[in-house]
Amino acid sequence: MPQTPDRDAVRFLVASTHCEVAGLQDLIAAGRLVVGVRGLVHCLQRERGASNLFLGSAGRCYGEQLGAYQADAAQAETRLREELAGWLSPPQVPRDCSRLFARIAMLLQGLTELPHLRAQVHAGAGGVDATMSSFNELIRGLLGVVFEAADSAADPQISRALVAMFNFMQGKELAGQERAIGAAGFSRGEFDERLQQSLLHRIDGQERCFQTFTEFCDSESLALWQHTLTAAHSTAVERLRRIACTQTKPRSPGIELAEIWFTQTTSRIDAMKEVEDGLEAYLLGLCQSRIATVTAEQASAEDRIAELARSELAHDTPFAVVLGQSEAPPDADVQAPRRSVMDLVQRQSRRLQAMEDELQAARQALNERKVIERAKALLMKHRDLSEDQAHRLLRQTAMNQNRRLVEVAEATVAMADVLGS
Amino acid sequence: MPQTPDRDAVRFLVASTHCEVAGLQDLIAAGRLVVGVRGLVHCLQRERGASNLFLGSAGRCYGEQLGAYQADAAQAETRLREELAGWLSPPQVPRDCSRLFARIAMLLQGLTELPHLRAQVHAGAGGVDATMSSFNELIRGLLGVVFEAADSAADPQISRALVAMFNFMQGKELAGQERAIGAAGFSRGEFDERLQQSLLHRIDGQERCFQTFTEFCDSESLALWQHTLTAAHSTAVERLRRIACTQTKPRSPGIELAEIWFTQTTSRIDAMKEVEDGLEAYLLGLCQSRIATVTAEQASAEDRIAELARSELAHDTPFAVVLGQSEAPPDADVQAPRRSVMDLVQRQSRRLQAMEDELQAARQALNERKVIERAKALLMKHRDLSEDQAHRLLRQTAMNQNRRLVEVAEATVAMADVLGS
Repeated sequence: MPQTPDRDAVRFLVASTHCEVAGLQDLIAAGRLVVGVRGLVHCLQRERGASNLFLGSAGRCYGEQLGAYQADAAQAETRLREELAGWLSPPQVPRDCSRLFARIAMLLQGLTELPHLRAQVHAGAGGVDATMSSFNELIRGLLGVVFEAADSAADPQISRALVAMFNFMQGKELAGQERAIGAAGFSRGEFDERLQQSLLHRIDGQERCFQTFTEFCDSESLALWQHTLTAAHSTAVERLRRIACTQTKPRSPGIELAEIWFTQTTSRIDAMKEVEDGLEAYLLGLCQSRIATVTAEQASAEDRIAELARSELAHDTPFAVVLGQSEAPPDADVQAPRRSVMDLVQRQSRRLQAMEDELQAARQALNERKVIERAKALLMKHRDLSEDQAHRLLRQTAMNQNRRLVEVAEATVAMADVLGS
Repeated sequence: MPQTPDRDAVRFLVASTHCEVAGLQDLIAAGRLVVGVRGLVHCLQRERGASNLFLGSAGRCYGEQLGAYQADAAQAETRLREELAGWLSPPQVPRDCSRLFARIAMLLQGLTELPHLRAQVHAGAGGVDATMSSFNELIRGLLGVVFEAADSAADPQISRALVAMFNFMQGKELAGQERAIGAAGFSRGEFDERLQQSLLHRIDGQERCFQTFTEFCDSESLALWQHTLTAAHSTAVERLRRIACTQTKPRSPGIELAEIWFTQTTSRIDAMKEVEDGLEAYLLGLCQSRIATVTAEQASAEDRIAELARSELAHDTPFAVVLGQSEAPPDADVQAPRRSVMDLVQRQSRRLQAMEDELQAARQALNERKVIERAKALLMKHRDLSEDQAHRLLRQTAMNQNRRLVEVAEATVAMADVLGS
């Protein structure tokens, strides 16, 4: 049956591709935001490690570097704030950003505590644990912004890249916490059981994060990551981990081991930063190439619609008006083979459906993390546990019941009502 | 530690509530769209039933009503198109509407076939099955728009109401298909096994849809629905269902039973429309009340921020500038108890998190439907089955294996690669 193109059908088809492009442009903005967040996270991780070393050694180590690290972090904060300023004066209010914006607000308010925190460190006050917690909280807020960006990405490839990025950053953060915990222990010359458990928890967490990263990253980032696993610092860190986790009081002089630990874990984290740089370049390239593809798709749809318009000259309503074209060429070939609007629409629908299907796989990884975080939060609240203890409880239960961590977390969330006091 | 409010943190907090309001406004537009869609669905269902009766009786029945029904449907189509026109000239490009717009484009293009279809019915051509399929396809496209609206709703209460609405509309559509199939069978005076299977499939489908509806609807709609289940037409329809499904050639004269069938099923569907009306009123009221709540929340946040601003007069940057207030009152009480920005942000975050958690439950019902539809589509393509056959195969497998339908569907989708020829 020959079909008359419906003007509004065509308009909605064009609007559908416009929405897609607008969504991708939001994603590119999110990609740039991730770049800024990542820069500040890296600086704060270094400042945290140096602060711990400075406090743990009662001011004997890293006093000079600490100042330089603090200045770097302040610069990174300025850059992030500049990037964020662009989000406050957009040409239009973006949708679905309420959670992202609330996270950013919380993060920015949290950052106001940094000067006070730094003053305490310089005064040798506040204690290693409290200082570390404050830094951890800030970095957790920064990672939350990346998580939210990954969670709201509506493009499967970009979503996969953001899932890889988030997990890698989370893994690197756990490596940073490990460095800080180790720095505190080695500089004090002592690891008690609590500190050892903390270290083991970070080592275990890193492995899970990097595993998810390898499942979602591009092949180049994967190759780069596998290369760093064979570097000299990897071996050195493994040796020091063994010392920290098995000897309560390391035999060698504490200060010396502390410096080796800090140097080697820093090399390891710097290598991670290079992997992250590659991942970031891939992510930004992907955003550009996706937007180019969809724009081309849009142009091709508009071309074919224009072609339809020319072959529809006999119709009473000039079809070209739909596209904002003043008039159709008078010599148009009325017999030109035309493709139906239905074909175009079905093609667009199939493409969107295929993207939706792919997207589900990437979302799965994020949903599992959400459930685990939620279960931990419930346990922390109702059983009055620390985050480490809550995580250990979940992991232990999973091992005992021979179930996946996420299954135990799901059961915990489902049981939330009976957890109450 | 006393906190200095961070200007950008406050800006992002305000932006977060603005996004929420904008998102709710989109939802209200979606709610109005559902109203228009629902009106056209109802008219097309009636026209389909009358067309089948007209064709099945070789033009002896319902010739007059058919014209009136067609005119009603045409009016409903005009109203829907007017509603849709508003979506094409919005103040800004909405995000995340690419799938919805593609579905609307497909629907509108599909509607261009209606005049041809009607001409065929009047000419007594096209056949009952083909005519019914064409109407089914159009109504499926309309329901797809409602599904998409429900799927993209980011507010848990509205999402629940839309899930209830979609399932009720889907159940009512299956009731409409049942009416049309029964009308064809009774007016021919014969039900073969294929027709009986078709009827049973629709009866079974209705039960699942109305079950989901009762899980997600408001209490008033539920009471109204339960009331219709005890009405006289319910008993009459059950009796006629039994005749259709157990006797190949009904003993009573076909034409007479056909008219009774059509009258009783129409009473039943009209009662369903009343439940739908209630559901629609609830949905629209909910949209209005949610937007009022969030706007109040926003105003309260801005008030408290203004209060903060007054107590922050000592600071170098006038805080009121953030809110676009020209200047703070000179007699502000600097000692006024102030609530920290962090409290405000945490409150907003907790609220958004709680909403996200609730939302998951509503989404679950939609995701299950997506998986089942996807599994059916795969079976139809790879095994060359009709939709009915694909559904029966899934259901039979679920019964044989004592598993839920959705589990079998998930396994089918996961096995998609091995289904290929």
